[in-house]
Amino acid sequence: MINKLIAHISRFSNLTDKEIQEIRNCFHEKVIQKKEFILKAGVVSTYECFIADGCLRAFVIDEKGTEHNIRFGIENSWIGDLDSFFKQTSATYYIQALETSSLLLIDVSKLNRLMDTIQGFEHYFRIMFQYGVMSLQLRMVQELSLTAEQRYTHFIKKYPHLLQRIPQKHIASYLGITPEFLSMLRKKITSK
Amino acid sequence: MINKLIAHISRFSNLTDKEIQEIRNCFHEKVIQKKEFILKAGVVSTYECFIADGCLRAFVIDEKGTEHNIRFGIENSWIGDLDSFFKQTSATYYIQALETSSLLLIDVSKLNRLMDTIQGFEHYFRIMFQYGVMSLQLRMVQELSLTAEQRYTHFIKKYPHLLQRIPQKHIASYLGITPEFLSMLRKKITSK
Repeated sequence: MINKLIAHISRFSNLTDKEIQEIRNCFHEKVIQKKEFILKAGVVSTYECFIADGCLRAFVIDEKGTEHNIRFGIENSWIGDLDSFFKQTSATYYIQALETSSLLLIDVSKLNRLMDTIQGFEHYFRIMFQYGVMSLQLRMVQELSLTAEQRYTHFIKKYPHLLQRIPQKHIASYLGITPEFLSMLRKKITSK
Repeated sequence: MINKLIAHISRFSNLTDKEIQEIRNCFHEKVIQKKEFILKAGVVSTYECFIADGCLRAFVIDEKGTEHNIRFGIENSWIGDLDSFFKQTSATYYIQALETSSLLLIDVSKLNRLMDTIQGFEHYFRIMFQYGVMSLQLRMVQELSLTAEQRYTHFIKKYPHLLQRIPQKHIASYLGITPEFLSMLRKKITSK
């Protein structure tokens, strides 16, 4: 499983065998079942997770009890509540598996140590965080300035591979609409 | 003006004199007046900006013509449309000065070169992007799961120094409410 992470880092950075071994030593593997949680709001996030296989969702619950999906994570991406993880404060995210998923977990002291001591590893995370800002910026802009139909059209274009994997109700929650409204939008777009 | 940026980087990284000189050579200074724009949606973002002094806002305009403030930037922070800047595609952000502001500008090829060649500079940007993700994550969570009153209370706690500098109408736009509703919230909170 760790080979998937090493291959992902190697897309961006050249690592020596010694560095690869150091990185291997800092992660542990975990398989979680569909519907299982790796984080719940209110507890401190112990691990940041690389998804070797599978699919998870990060969501928040508002005071009325409504769930809002923030993002989905699939293989070769990272998922976690970064604010809680780096500050070691209570999480605001719930993170739950939508499929049986294989994860590689690392704690904050090890992640900081690897970023401080292996230049290629820090380079990789600079790029991951850069992508993270760009992706959240777009999500924020869409949330604030696009209609539900425009947001759905963007979603289809950007994440066609997710449409078959993620239940409609979770896509609706990501788009900030009801499953019924999403169903109506799908019919409208299909009939165009 | 460039000394402010060097001092900011030096909070996170040790730089040699040669590296400092290389960084100096890659930026140019610009003073912009209140209400002036450094970026408009639809054009490609040429520069990423370090704010040496002043205050700016990044906002989007929806199809009804309503402005939505995404974030405010003050001295010792960065502002720009990262997605447009790194991909050299059309910007979605407008960026406008709320005060006369002193900026340090860098283009994408120079920023990439500095990150690739000066380890301390990449370390600094790894941390800037990491903070960026954490901050956008919180903004997203608040937007999706908190009431307007809760969002305002968070804003007061997190950015007390901005309350006097930023017009109420722009704070209202950031919070996603009307200026009238913000005025009502302020009276309610003051009278508690």
